[in-house]
Amino acid sequence: MKTEKTPEAGAITRTPFPNSRKIYVKGEIHDISVAMREISLTDTRHHGRLGAAEKNAPVTVYDTSGPFTDPNIDIDVKKGLPALRAEWIRNRQDVEELPGISSAYGKQRLSDTSLDHLRFAHISKPLRALPGQNVSQLHYAKKGIITAEMEYIAIRENQRIDQQMAELNGKAGTLGHQHAGHSFGANTPKGHITPEFVRQEIAAGRAVLPNNINHPESEPMIIGRNFLVKINANIGNSAVSSSIEEEVEKAVWACRWGADTIMDLSTGKNIHETREWIIRNSPVPIGTVPIYQALEKVNGKAEDLTWELFRDTLIEQAEQGVDYFTIHAGVLLRYIPLTAKRITGIVSRGGSIMAKWCLAHHKENFLYTHFEDICEIMKAYDVAFSLGDGLRPGSIADANDAAQFAELETLGELTKIAWKHDIQTIIEGPGHVPMHLIKENMEKQLEHCQEAPFYTLGPLTTDIAPGYDHITSAIGAAMIGWFGTAMLCYVTPKEHLGLPNKKDVKDGVITYKIAAHAADLAKGHPGAQYRDNALSKARFEFRWEDQFNLSLDPDTAKEFHDETLPAEGAKIAHFCSMCGPNFCSMKITQDVREYAESNGFGEEEAISEGMLAKSREFTSKGSEIYL
Amino acid sequence: MKTEKTPEAGAITRTPFPNSRKIYVKGEIHDISVAMREISLTDTRHHGRLGAAEKNAPVTVYDTSGPFTDPNIDIDVKKGLPALRAEWIRNRQDVEELPGISSAYGKQRLSDTSLDHLRFAHISKPLRALPGQNVSQLHYAKKGIITAEMEYIAIRENQRIDQQMAELNGKAGTLGHQHAGHSFGANTPKGHITPEFVRQEIAAGRAVLPNNINHPESEPMIIGRNFLVKINANIGNSAVSSSIEEEVEKAVWACRWGADTIMDLSTGKNIHETREWIIRNSPVPIGTVPIYQALEKVNGKAEDLTWELFRDTLIEQAEQGVDYFTIHAGVLLRYIPLTAKRITGIVSRGGSIMAKWCLAHHKENFLYTHFEDICEIMKAYDVAFSLGDGLRPGSIADANDAAQFAELETLGELTKIAWKHDIQTIIEGPGHVPMHLIKENMEKQLEHCQEAPFYTLGPLTTDIAPGYDHITSAIGAAMIGWFGTAMLCYVTPKEHLGLPNKKDVKDGVITYKIAAHAADLAKGHPGAQYRDNALSKARFEFRWEDQFNLSLDPDTAKEFHDETLPAEGAKIAHFCSMCGPNFCSMKITQDVREYAESNGFGEEEAISEGMLAKSREFTSKGSEIYL
Repeated sequence: MKTEKTPEAGAITRTPFPNSRKIYVKGEIHDISVAMREISLTDTRHHGRLGAAEKNAPVTVYDTSGPFTDPNIDIDVKKGLPALRAEWIRNRQDVEELPGISSAYGKQRLSDTSLDHLRFAHISKPLRALPGQNVSQLHYAKKGIITAEMEYIAIRENQRIDQQMAELNGKAGTLGHQHAGHSFGANTPKGHITPEFVRQEIAAGRAVLPNNINHPESEPMIIGRNFLVKINANIGNSAVSSSIEEEVEKAVWACRWGADTIMDLSTGKNIHETREWIIRNSPVPIGTVPIYQALEKVNGKAEDLTWELFRDTLIEQAEQGVDYFTIHAGVLLRYIPLTAKRITGIVSRGGSIMAKWCLAHHKENFLYTHFEDICEIMKAYDVAFSLGDGLRPGSIADANDAAQFAELETLGELTKIAWKHDIQTIIEGPGHVPMHLIKENMEKQLEHCQEAPFYTLGPLTTDIAPGYDHITSAIGAAMIGWFGTAMLCYVTPKEHLGLPNKKDVKDGVITYKIAAHAADLAKGHPGAQYRDNALSKARFEFRWEDQFNLSLDPDTAKEFHDETLPAEGAKIAHFCSMCGPNFCSMKITQDVREYAESNGFGEEEAISEGMLAKSREFTSKGSEIYL
Repeated sequence: MKTEKTPEAGAITRTPFPNSRKIYVKGEIHDISVAMREISLTDTRHHGRLGAAEKNAPVTVYDTSGPFTDPNIDIDVKKGLPALRAEWIRNRQDVEELPGISSAYGKQRLSDTSLDHLRFAHISKPLRALPGQNVSQLHYAKKGIITAEMEYIAIRENQRIDQQMAELNGKAGTLGHQHAGHSFGANTPKGHITPEFVRQEIAAGRAVLPNNINHPESEPMIIGRNFLVKINANIGNSAVSSSIEEEVEKAVWACRWGADTIMDLSTGKNIHETREWIIRNSPVPIGTVPIYQALEKVNGKAEDLTWELFRDTLIEQAEQGVDYFTIHAGVLLRYIPLTAKRITGIVSRGGSIMAKWCLAHHKENFLYTHFEDICEIMKAYDVAFSLGDGLRPGSIADANDAAQFAELETLGELTKIAWKHDIQTIIEGPGHVPMHLIKENMEKQLEHCQEAPFYTLGPLTTDIAPGYDHITSAIGAAMIGWFGTAMLCYVTPKEHLGLPNKKDVKDGVITYKIAAHAADLAKGHPGAQYRDNALSKARFEFRWEDQFNLSLDPDTAKEFHDETLPAEGAKIAHFCSMCGPNFCSMKITQDVREYAESNGFGEEEAISEGMLAKSREFTSKGSEIYL
């Protein structure tokens, strides 16, 4: 039987988007089906020409909502999502199924019968690379192998735009019209992304495909500056929320509105069990900051952290299926004093934890000294590195300072080590940065980190608007996305103030989809402008429902419209609620066109001619005025 | 007796901002008092050092809320605000008081007894320049005169930052710390704006000081790229809203949150009377688009518009005190065909009205052919031109096209004419523009319009987020503000969908204050960063109330914080609600500092030494790892 489809307290949101259906595009190299969302549009009706109607081709959009928005798929959170990639992984014959989980902590939790009621019922045995094998996508890419994941991404990134432009037969000139972005990667395919291009970008380290072999439920996605800009949403369990479904719903909700990856920053007693539920039901890659859980294990005493305990935590999470780990290995002992005179010191949790440990022991950061040991774990499960910027600025005043850039150089050094082991790596970036200092961050990152993908938090472009930091940061995020950042970590309106609720998560995700898409437009990503043009055409033609359905948030667009003009009739009204019939510029413009046509000015050329003739006298008269 | 100070339906919002008082700074050249808002802060308490406390100097901020937030001033909307500038104007002895209003329409409304109940009771006789006189600030500036308005602006723009930095005795190094913006006007005074600098900028046409001699209630403000970036909020009466107080409250509400000017786009029957109420109670300059009212007078039939009717409308509004007029004189007959193939045609109301008129009559735009006649009216009241961009793009696809730039060149031509008459002029700009095409707009505007101030709507950087266009446009607004735009016209979440309500107006204003301030930071405006630093210091020191009070919207910041931690105690809690005591990076950083101090690493130098010594071994050990 099917899960409840309408959102309810504790229930999973499964309502499909309006006028949308899930389509599956077949692969050519591999036997794969790539999920996309197709939005069907209404016809264009020309005024003054009774009955005359023009078809509008459906628009396919990139879809992160996963199986949840496909009513034909039965979903039971207690069983988890179908294991989309299970076969692909096993067919490569380089993994073994372990007899059971390897981490001491995982075993301890498993043997604790008091947790049985919390436990995910269908835990499968973890997979691990066979001895001597490396199962990372970077490893395959370097060997020239185009994996199923890589082909999936090529198809997914193209969004069928080329087919759709073709279907437009002729109108491509209009809807297809696109401003050539001027900063898009030199080696970007013009108009079409191929599986081989995906492989090349991964092999070069310019793109990362995070998908732990123990998270086969996830739909492959890619993080790289020659692809669509991605966004991450942070979620975390809260003491108050009880039901497992509520925890899962948080992730489902973020993915529904466009989150490309989810970072699970849960804290508290049962994070091990909660994480299992989230991963089993997540269609997108999951990232974590393992040091948070490690700190929990030592009751919050940073100085009690040890490499052995941290190592066990990495294995625990890798075998659950976490796709990327944030590791603050760049916070070196000698950099800590550089933060002493800052206005906001060290604001990264992980960074301050490691700084505290370093000072307490007068020792170098153990994440740095054990970095190659960490690499051995990562490549056995294909967990990607997200090298954390523990010394990022926490205020405009501290932006681009010595501490920040010293750490960035170390992250570049660590990237070389990770690549030596064929481990996929992305670099985390700030933070709080005024607009004129943003570009320097991107340039230094590309230089020091050999073009490894950049993953930035915002940056916030001012500190004076707590309550609106999704906006202060969207400005910086859009800019740095345009400059080349591959993934943007969202900021919610509650940043600096409190815990985000469901509305805050949605506001943060939509705001960051805006920033990412604005960046795609500016970069001239193939087809990025197609959706804008389709929506603008619908807006101009008063196809209100199409305008709502093509937008990032159809619910809010419709709700705002109906606040002023609730009547159904208004949805086909040929004027804007703001202006009324006489004032609507769109209507007047259409009148202008019809007037021009009815006077034989049907063609632009004809109009120009007629008008220019007519206007010459006024121009000359005009110019007299100015003598 | 005083007006109700708590916001109520129909009442005027007068609640002062928390921990803030209105201060008045005296002039040195003229007998003037410049209103500002002073925010007092609590002391910094150092942990581990009992009782040790450090004073934090109050922060003065630019204040657009006018007398409404000064509880010592009695305000009666039926009488209007005190006439701050009345004496300054009369003392120049170049104006005459007219026996009555001159416009035919104004007289007609006045003689209509059925409107008596709507009429503002205390209408004073209009002022006009004596025959042969020019009362524009540009005219005075060119003659080398520093008016009271100019000195007011110098004091207002400086915000007492220099005094405050001095008061910080020593800590200026911290709070005063500022990133040098790299695009700030070459001829910007370093750290301090003088009255003479204000005069020079106005004389050069680089800045505009809109203040009609018939709007003496307004507090002088300046629009120019070598000053703080300003924002405009559009308001308009709605059929439903009845009470005059509600109409006035809309303007007061927008000013409260930071609107530097208000454009009254009211439509419908009683706009003449409504406008009188708004102007008499507005502490900021008022702008209008006179063609809207003219169109009302001909029942919405664009083709019935005449120069005579438009001229009467200009005089009607100039004598009421409108400070700037949007005039779409650049929509030339020969440019109209250039819009025929656009996805969204002509989206400017004024632009489409004039286009319709031009085609209907096969004549050149009468605003263009009568431009010098318009100039004669403007200079008699010091009304500034806001040359409208009637052909601005309404979608990403139409950005930076031939129609848009053809009109821009004509606006530059008209600017020369306006300046010939010493009339202050600003240029309106787009619209919808992808990020990579924004700079070209600024560069072409500076080139074609000889550095006249640019006044842009957004621009929106994508079309796919109706319901969130305050955000899609804030991205473009912040960027173009940084590039040199002097004033940003706000966009509310209801753009393209419906009429903004009170919440939408506030969201739009706050969002644009963010964009304008982010631009000021990037431009390195003297003192722009002072408030950011004060707030960040408060945030780092867990002075929650100070953080709220220094923010653009203290109410929302406090509300969001209290959602998670309602208890009063939480406001002095030394950890963030997001993380809890163990996880708070700020707390850990403070522990780090204290730890360092208690171990004799009090000074940065000392720390560096000690740490570097300590860390050498690890560096060498570290580097071994990487061989």
